[in-house]
Amino acid sequence: MQAAVHRLSMRHPGDVSELEALFHAGALRPADVVAVIGKTEGNGGVNDFTRGYFTQSLLALLARRTGEDAAALAGRIPCVLSGGCEGVLSPHYLVFSRRGEAAGGDGPPALAIGVAMSEPLQPEDIGRGGHIRSVAAAVRRAMADARIASPADVQLVQVKCPTVTVAGAQDAAARGRTVVSQDPNRAMAHARVAGAFGVAQALGELDHDAEALSLAGLADFGQYSDKASISSGVEVRCNEVIVLGASRAWRGPLRIACRPMRDALDIGAVYDTCRDLGLELRQHQLTPAARARVAGVLVKCEPDRRGSVRGQRHTMLDDTDINAQRHIRGAVGGLVAGVLGDGRLFVSGGAEHQGPDGGGLVAVIAEALA
Amino acid sequence: MQAAVHRLSMRHPGDVSELEALFHAGALRPADVVAVIGKTEGNGGVNDFTRGYFTQSLLALLARRTGEDAAALAGRIPCVLSGGCEGVLSPHYLVFSRRGEAAGGDGPPALAIGVAMSEPLQPEDIGRGGHIRSVAAAVRRAMADARIASPADVQLVQVKCPTVTVAGAQDAAARGRTVVSQDPNRAMAHARVAGAFGVAQALGELDHDAEALSLAGLADFGQYSDKASISSGVEVRCNEVIVLGASRAWRGPLRIACRPMRDALDIGAVYDTCRDLGLELRQHQLTPAARARVAGVLVKCEPDRRGSVRGQRHTMLDDTDINAQRHIRGAVGGLVAGVLGDGRLFVSGGAEHQGPDGGGLVAVIAEALA
Amino acid sequence: MQAAVHRLSMRHPGDVSELEALFHAGALRPADVVAVIGKTEGNGGVNDFTRGYFTQSLLALLARRTGEDAAALAGRIPCVLSGGCEGVLSPHYLVFSRRGEAAGGDGPPALAIGVAMSEPLQPEDIGRGGHIRSVAAAVRRAMADARIASPADVQLVQVKCPTVTVAGAQDAAARGRTVVSQDPNRAMAHARVAGAFGVAQALGELDHDAEALSLAGLADFGQYSDKASISSGVEVRCNEVIVLGASRAWRGPLRIACRPMRDALDIGAVYDTCRDLGLELRQHQLTPAARARVAGVLVKCEPDRRGSVRGQRHTMLDDTDINAQRHIRGAVGGLVAGVLGDGRLFVSGGAEHQGPDGGGLVAVIAEALA
Amino acid sequence: MQAAVHRLSMRHPGDVSELEALFHAGALRPADVVAVIGKTEGNGGVNDFTRGYFTQSLLALLARRTGEDAAALAGRIPCVLSGGCEGVLSPHYLVFSRRGEAAGGDGPPALAIGVAMSEPLQPEDIGRGGHIRSVAAAVRRAMADARIASPADVQLVQVKCPTVTVAGAQDAAARGRTVVSQDPNRAMAHARVAGAFGVAQALGELDHDAEALSLAGLADFGQYSDKASISSGVEVRCNEVIVLGASRAWRGPLRIACRPMRDALDIGAVYDTCRDLGLELRQHQLTPAARARVAGVLVKCEPDRRGSVRGQRHTMLDDTDINAQRHIRGAVGGLVAGVLGDGRLFVSGGAEHQGPDGGGLVAVIAEALA
Repeated sequence: MQAAVHRLSMRHPGDVSELEALFHAGALRPADVVAVIGKTEGNGGVNDFTRGYFTQSLLALLARRTGEDAAALAGRIPCVLSGGCEGVLSPHYLVFSRRGEAAGGDGPPALAIGVAMSEPLQPEDIGRGGHIRSVAAAVRRAMADARIASPADVQLVQVKCPTVTVAGAQDAAARGRTVVSQDPNRAMAHARVAGAFGVAQALGELDHDAEALSLAGLADFGQYSDKASISSGVEVRCNEVIVLGASRAWRGPLRIACRPMRDALDIGAVYDTCRDLGLELRQHQLTPAARARVAGVLVKCEPDRRGSVRGQRHTMLDDTDINAQRHIRGAVGGLVAGVLGDGRLFVSGGAEHQGPDGGGLVAVIAEALA
Repeated sequence: MQAAVHRLSMRHPGDVSELEALFHAGALRPADVVAVIGKTEGNGGVNDFTRGYFTQSLLALLARRTGEDAAALAGRIPCVLSGGCEGVLSPHYLVFSRRGEAAGGDGPPALAIGVAMSEPLQPEDIGRGGHIRSVAAAVRRAMADARIASPADVQLVQVKCPTVTVAGAQDAAARGRTVVSQDPNRAMAHARVAGAFGVAQALGELDHDAEALSLAGLADFGQYSDKASISSGVEVRCNEVIVLGASRAWRGPLRIACRPMRDALDIGAVYDTCRDLGLELRQHQLTPAARARVAGVLVKCEPDRRGSVRGQRHTMLDDTDINAQRHIRGAVGGLVAGVLGDGRLFVSGGAEHQGPDGGGLVAVIAEALA
Repeated sequence: MQAAVHRLSMRHPGDVSELEALFHAGALRPADVVAVIGKTEGNGGVNDFTRGYFTQSLLALLARRTGEDAAALAGRIPCVLSGGCEGVLSPHYLVFSRRGEAAGGDGPPALAIGVAMSEPLQPEDIGRGGHIRSVAAAVRRAMADARIASPADVQLVQVKCPTVTVAGAQDAAARGRTVVSQDPNRAMAHARVAGAFGVAQALGELDHDAEALSLAGLADFGQYSDKASISSGVEVRCNEVIVLGASRAWRGPLRIACRPMRDALDIGAVYDTCRDLGLELRQHQLTPAARARVAGVLVKCEPDRRGSVRGQRHTMLDDTDINAQRHIRGAVGGLVAGVLGDGRLFVSGGAEHQGPDGGGLVAVIAEALA
Repeated sequence: MQAAVHRLSMRHPGDVSELEALFHAGALRPADVVAVIGKTEGNGGVNDFTRGYFTQSLLALLARRTGEDAAALAGRIPCVLSGGCEGVLSPHYLVFSRRGEAAGGDGPPALAIGVAMSEPLQPEDIGRGGHIRSVAAAVRRAMADARIASPADVQLVQVKCPTVTVAGAQDAAARGRTVVSQDPNRAMAHARVAGAFGVAQALGELDHDAEALSLAGLADFGQYSDKASISSGVEVRCNEVIVLGASRAWRGPLRIACRPMRDALDIGAVYDTCRDLGLELRQHQLTPAARARVAGVLVKCEPDRRGSVRGQRHTMLDDTDINAQRHIRGAVGGLVAGVLGDGRLFVSGGAEHQGPDGGGLVAVIAEALA
């Protein structure tokens, strides 16, 4: 098997014309698409509808091209959108595809991609123990799908979780159930935590049971996964999982590297990730040749909940005008874009228990040197 | 003479307790203060009152300590505040002071500081030719005050300009005059342009007359100063000018370096500026020892008006929720903070004609190695 | 002919399920739909994509139900969305339909609906004389379509105009053309002005030619239409026009009344409009019975550009955090909702030259008493 | 005794020039000022510093005029600022003063004013049982100060409570204590609840003990006060209480009326309150003569936490761009301003347990007809 990653720009959240052009040119077969990860220009919060708009547009295109029903496509192709293109971030999406049979296993390990979808969650389950177990099971299925046997070969697990809306909370209440939080932003945080702990369980990073982990959520920040990147949003009902790593069952030039970021200023982690992939620098920035080898960049980050970064007070958590996640995406996006020389970064806030407390992680997909 | 720069944190825009502590401890004489540059946690726009709040608090403290009237102090001490601590930026202020007699001139050139205040401007003059001339004259006076004879020895000119408010526009209209723009954000931009062209005239960077330059404002972006950093705000009536550079009339360990930034991803300019000052790196970030030598960092930046950065579309200019200047401060602040390892940066948006189009400049003040 | 107006709620901007239910129940024939006016929960600015999302969803539904192509439907059914549900405003849409032959003319005048679409506009034409002429011609065609001969019988003309985006401005520049303004919010204002003057020309409210009116735009606010309600947005390329009024060629219980609002506090205009339609009050609010007769409410309003309302300073125009249009929609929406007892109001900001300076207009569609 | 209420405008949050002019003209004696309630043009959230800026400016003026120390003045004069002038709301402040001896008791009851300050609260006490008791005790002292014996004669109790900041939470944590919520907006809500329940206890509206009420906070919304108006903010350390009502110990033309608002559309409550004071209407709005009799208007309101108003979905609670309190202040402010014909309204969000669930209250101070 061989994976491909196409990084495509969008002119607005309903624009999938670059993908359509690839299909039209025969450069990509619609049936080979297995997952999409994208960054749309909304606010990234509960009322960010750019994600749903893009997804509707994408599925309509895939339905036209594959002949499958849009709902069926949504049921098998994880489509993980993160809203919010703060600062230099540029709206774009990564289309993951694969084709061919499993390779013989004598070549070097290459980029492996696996996907899985969980069953739909009820509003009252979101962000709790059942949510963690649901994610963990889906991660294991996605690893099998990727032909990755050892958790050590997993580099990044991207999950999109459902969250609680006002309507969902009322629906739960009507059935006599409570939701994890009435506050929409807090509910989104709990949903992400469940995703992170589900990944950590599946990869053996944390060995507590789901209920214990659920209690650690947003409380014991020493518990975290170094490989989980979680989004949550109103537009999905089930957990959508994408596993990225290395496997000899795959071939081709693509490789992935991922590093935890200690905090929002951990520029060294970005350089280390680039070095892992042999990407060359000039004046502390990727050379044009190295930049051309990059197929995708994914970053998780977080406004430090303790109110300071390296001892200096930040104002993100006290800002009533701009959501804290928008602040941190803009800042870390600026830093990573400076190293890479490119604003096409999937930078996602809400990194609770995804990487070190107050930090996050950075992953780069790039072609190996021939 | 010897310059000192104290970098102090504030807990809120009315907090000048760290300066009070310095006075109390005898570490700084109130009468030696000649200028203050600070970053407060407002929105940086027309309705950002954190600048006025800080200024009122600062002047009240200085008045108590010097016995001078607050209005008299405001008339001789430039107090340049920029609102907006997006992302990792940390609210802080730089207190510039000087003491002693002019040095003999046989030592190495050291940090030189000069200040000047223009006459008050009428609303209708703001952002036009008369504004440019007013700034240029004040810059020349500030250079003389700094004992800097050659424009080549100037590294940075920080100016705070008045802008047009709704009330100001009405006042002008009542006198039968028009203002440069009814739109408050656009009027602020024109005010900054006048500041930049005034600096460029005084330093000989541009030799057109003020009226011609006025026409080039926000139109011909090939005309710019590489050393101007301009803020504009509702809280000042006259142009406040601070010139920073090098002069043998000064001594002490402090030095300043300044570089233009080509665009918002020009991380190389930041590293170059650090290298100019001999600041050492480890894993692409200042070492703790180097960080301890830094006394202040000033950055100007700009959301590229052409809608893209290095060919990738950005969304800053089309965002109705977050002002474009807030976007770019957050992004460039994140980048510079990553290199410096510190969020105490004076990052100011609105870099029209201050550095290359779509870019800006970065200046660092640091102690020389012994 | 008989007009029907269905007022439908949406759970999110992609939700057209209430319309689908009407189709399914046979309560409305898809082929009878002639126009849609709706309020989506975006920010109402250039980067509000909820309008496009809703439109895409609506057209997909209509295409499935009518068998027509979505593009063809978009070419004949004006779909006027205004983003921004501030305060108590509730996301909803009005579906206008008509069926049957022209009535004999012996009954009372009933609600008449006519539509027309202009040719697409180039970015450089938007907000200028050609734009005015394009709108005026379309209004005349829509009047004919509504069988309204006299402008006096027109109560409201709703127009959706295209605006200039960053991409559009660059496209124009590439062809050596300028756009009316580089500032996206100002360009939207100019587009709305062109719409208002186009309506005023077609209705004989103003008799200057288009070029003269173009000069009066955003300058001479004494020139306005009392019947124009204009939106502008990135998602349309041509002017979409809906004329609403009274005609004996129509029958049925629906009537429309429209009144200018003098300013944002002109609560009397709202009561007058209700009285025009015989809607009864209890404790200064529509009775439940009167409320049940209301089929739709449309309001235009404007943050007074002079900075005050009835002599008291407002802060809308100086606010960098919240766009002024969002401010005024929330305030006037609260006032009108208080009289009507219902938050399902199409309240649209940007009322430049639509009603008196600083005010706007209010229109109510309701069933006549039997 | 006789109360006076001066309603003064401010040009910016540091502007107390109208009060200074009153002092200068001898129209008001500085020593007679007992309380100030104002509306400043910030965002009303944790990072709204316009309240502190105004307070600093006010206290500096009073200190100059009375010769008292600013800290001493702050310790005896409640200064209740609410940030956020959304929509048509106009920045202004009400200066309450009193002079003369207690009246004999044979005249009609007139406006009575009493004030009290609690002891400072620790961060960990805020929003909990101790906070409730602290407020109740202060309300009783303020009633005594107002010479109001019966709770039935109290119309409005305005309280300003401290809230938890990030720094406060860390301070508590350092002492091994928790705060009521880490989320700044939720902590502000809990602080307001404690204020409301403290008022309700003191007035006998609710007879549960403080710990039981504490559990009902943000949970059992059937428990509320009809006379409490609570603000919370970072700039105060103790509870500041102002009681307004009627007493025969006072004379003069001023009267106060207060009514609960059932929801955000309860326009009838506004008209009822005006009628209580004999204020005349023309076309459903106060006549100019009636308007001239109004000395102050105070409103509390709330985005309905159940997600709808009168059965129609609102979007305030799901909005990541604009804080829900800003939404509701703008809407209810627009409604009340339409009835009063004036934007100088103290409209304060965060009405949890202050008036009916989803509603709030409206109070008007006006001169009685001679």
